[in-house]
Amino acid sequence: MASLIETAVSTSVDVPSIDINGHSKSTSSSKAAKTSPAESLTTKTPGRSVRSKYRHIAAYHSELRTSCLSRDSTVNPSFIGFRNLMVIVLIVMNLRLIVENFMKYGVLICIKCHDYRRNDVFLGSILFALVPCHLFVAYIIELAAAQQAKGAVGRTKKSHDQAAESEKERRAFQSTWRLIAFAHTVNATLCLVVTNFVVYYYIHHPGIGTICEFHAIIVWLKNCSYAFTNRDLRHSMLHPSEQSKIPEIYSTCPYPKNVTVGNLTYFWLAPTLVYQPVYPRTPRIRWSFVGKRLVEFVVLSVFIWLTSAQYAAPVLRNSLEKIAVLDFTSIVERIMKLSTISLVIWLAGFFALFQSFLNALAEVMRFGDREFYSDWWNSWSVGMYWRSWNKPVYLFMKRHIFSPLVGRGWSPFAASAMVFLFSAILHELLVGIPTHNLIGVAFAGMLLQLPLITVTLPLEKRDDPTTRIIGNSVFWVSFCLVGQPLGALLYFFAWQAKYGSVSKLEN
Amino acid sequence: MASLIETAVSTSVDVPSIDINGHSKSTSSSKAAKTSPAESLTTKTPGRSVRSKYRHIAAYHSELRTSCLSRDSTVNPSFIGFRNLMVIVLIVMNLRLIVENFMKYGVLICIKCHDYRRNDVFLGSILFALVPCHLFVAYIIELAAAQQAKGAVGRTKKSHDQAAESEKERRAFQSTWRLIAFAHTVNATLCLVVTNFVVYYYIHHPGIGTICEFHAIIVWLKNCSYAFTNRDLRHSMLHPSEQSKIPEIYSTCPYPKNVTVGNLTYFWLAPTLVYQPVYPRTPRIRWSFVGKRLVEFVVLSVFIWLTSAQYAAPVLRNSLEKIAVLDFTSIVERIMKLSTISLVIWLAGFFALFQSFLNALAEVMRFGDREFYSDWWNSWSVGMYWRSWNKPVYLFMKRHIFSPLVGRGWSPFAASAMVFLFSAILHELLVGIPTHNLIGVAFAGMLLQLPLITVTLPLEKRDDPTTRIIGNSVFWVSFCLVGQPLGALLYFFAWQAKYGSVSKLEN
Repeated sequence: MASLIETAVSTSVDVPSIDINGHSKSTSSSKAAKTSPAESLTTKTPGRSVRSKYRHIAAYHSELRTSCLSRDSTVNPSFIGFRNLMVIVLIVMNLRLIVENFMKYGVLICIKCHDYRRNDVFLGSILFALVPCHLFVAYIIELAAAQQAKGAVGRTKKSHDQAAESEKERRAFQSTWRLIAFAHTVNATLCLVVTNFVVYYYIHHPGIGTICEFHAIIVWLKNCSYAFTNRDLRHSMLHPSEQSKIPEIYSTCPYPKNVTVGNLTYFWLAPTLVYQPVYPRTPRIRWSFVGKRLVEFVVLSVFIWLTSAQYAAPVLRNSLEKIAVLDFTSIVERIMKLSTISLVIWLAGFFALFQSFLNALAEVMRFGDREFYSDWWNSWSVGMYWRSWNKPVYLFMKRHIFSPLVGRGWSPFAASAMVFLFSAILHELLVGIPTHNLIGVAFAGMLLQLPLITVTLPLEKRDDPTTRIIGNSVFWVSFCLVGQPLGALLYFFAWQAKYGSVSKLEN
Repeated sequence: MASLIETAVSTSVDVPSIDINGHSKSTSSSKAAKTSPAESLTTKTPGRSVRSKYRHIAAYHSELRTSCLSRDSTVNPSFIGFRNLMVIVLIVMNLRLIVENFMKYGVLICIKCHDYRRNDVFLGSILFALVPCHLFVAYIIELAAAQQAKGAVGRTKKSHDQAAESEKERRAFQSTWRLIAFAHTVNATLCLVVTNFVVYYYIHHPGIGTICEFHAIIVWLKNCSYAFTNRDLRHSMLHPSEQSKIPEIYSTCPYPKNVTVGNLTYFWLAPTLVYQPVYPRTPRIRWSFVGKRLVEFVVLSVFIWLTSAQYAAPVLRNSLEKIAVLDFTSIVERIMKLSTISLVIWLAGFFALFQSFLNALAEVMRFGDREFYSDWWNSWSVGMYWRSWNKPVYLFMKRHIFSPLVGRGWSPFAASAMVFLFSAILHELLVGIPTHNLIGVAFAGMLLQLPLITVTLPLEKRDDPTTRIIGNSVFWVSFCLVGQPLGALLYFFAWQAKYGSVSKLEN
């Protein structure tokens, strides 16, 4: 078996030897001898430049050696081969499951089978059209506020008695702000309440419902950010001081110049939830980039749809009775099976939305800051994950909830508890409303993050690889392998319990 | 969500801010400001050492950034997190299969169920006792040869006419060697033939049969090595020359001093198939080391037994009808399922035998050269694998087949073809005889290695990681994920077709 490496080394080894009958034919060639197999083991003994013509006596066991897996081994071998094996086994195991699934269910993909009501689509489109209007109502409110502020500035300029004026001024501003705040609250709340009401009671299809809910929440958050930011901008204009400096980047468009339809429209469409009068912009739109991202997005969406229909749906379906009778072993088995699928869908979904879609949108909007996520997959604490996987929401929370609360003297823990409470409510709405089941699982799941973060916090400071591996594993298991599939299973169960399947075919 | 990292950084952030109703409470502290969240994003703009008291206007989007997964990203993030995920998914998937298997079959481990015939054990023990005797017959043959050689040396010393003598001498040696060779051949062949005959016709149980066959083949190989080595040693003694130098290490025990019962017994028990008069020895026996290795060996053996009984057996059983009706898809699915199990068993078996057992034996024998394998799992060509996974056999083949043939002018390819042919026959005996089915699958499997080696040979020379990954994957797939399970399946099928199960319980 050695030969083929020999061929790589020496073309032909032709050195003296003796055949089984003792006829010796000597055609020595020390050159060839150098590269001959036994030599490689016998050169170790000194002064054996000439190769023995007796091949059967070569001393292959010529020195003390250890097995490379023994503890007392001097060399520690690489195990990269096992990493490759791991990947291969993973592929094979999943291929097998695909074959098994096919033999069990055949092809489950069926476009016609899917029934959505005309009414759902109709209502959905109306909501989609209406929701952004609230943003423009917010604009009008801000316009009024800006007028009032400009007036105030004018007055302050004219007046001479600063001290008395400023006091009067402050009170005036406050009363106005109360009014504005009230108007904003009514406007924003209306946006959310109407959507929730319509989706919960009139839009049966969970998919369409989710899209509407998702859209409404995003616009609502933008609405809040717009109101808060403009309030602070206005106030900093009215009370110029060292501490009320506004960021350099805004200087090109100072308040109230930013309160325009164009400016708002940009914020409405930009891939961010944090309002700024000015954003870093890219010089031009690379349409090829946009095209690639959109192709990715479409391909991944189809992939997700196929995976859910062919693999997730059956698992969910045939785990229903298990849940009904609380057969614990089976439920665990089902969750384990679901976990891999939901993980794949989750990863595909993440990439489709945060990499492909948001980058495409940003490119079209010439939006400069593309850091929609950082390398959350390496995070070795749950806190790190939440800070890195969804930057748009994270930045909103940090700017409009966490930071102000901390500024008002809240303890960071209390502030972030607030953040998670808020985000828990939004999550429950996002999942519970379209599935018509406010069972509070998403809510609980989000709040559960707080203890998880607290537990894994010590890991963040530690810097040895082992800790990181442990922390990272804790994150993966808790979030992707237990949290998500369990949640999906429970909402699906609740849905089925209430309506039965959304799909016509039942097996 | 940011808070908990904040706590890690600054104990309490208490900087000026304005609450929703416009009451501003100023307790500035530029120290705290340094460590506050927004600051981290706003310090980028120069000259903003003092933190704005308006938290809602912090410019979080202050510069051009790319998503870290984009091609145009400057940083390329680590993906270690996904490696961890891979391991976790692998564990979860297999845990699931264990649960599934348990729900399907319950506990299949059953010691009483296993039936072996008294007769099998009886015959097995006799074979075990007889086989080594052939080794001592070989010793007697060598003893005679040594005597004759010593006589010859004496005669050469007396004689003066070297030229004439040496010619006569050579002929004399040859005739004697023919006799010795004949005796050895008869003796060795008898050892193998008898075992094969008894195992094939009289030992029903495949396990016991395999052990006997295994033992017989090992002793037979030792027998051959002993004969060939002593022949060359003798010849080099009779014809001393520059080319007939013997390795340094043998000098402490020159021929014919080495032809003793003690010396042979050591070779018989030593963990090698290559006879040397002298081996590198360790100074002392570390009994703790021996103990640990033996514990490993026992634990792994039990593990292998449990795995085969609980996981491999059912898969093999319920794939029988699939093979019978040649349901291709199902066969593929079964092989895929089997591959993971057989891989685990194979790896456990490798470690148990080559690391635990051989090291324990070597320690007891104070055998110095423990290199029973090198890091075969990293090999990126099939050839590398065969040269590194089983050193004892590899060294035998290299010293007593490959090297002599090459020495006699064979091309390295022809020589290694010979090696694989020889090894193929042995493999077929090892598997076919105990299962009473010489269906030639093992034989074919071994010969199939030659084309595989030739195909993957070019990869050996290339040194880029990608090539190595590809080559390594080819090796893993061809050998561990297809070759072995397929082979196992076929022999199991043949066995079942002939006898039905060896186990009483059938499901």
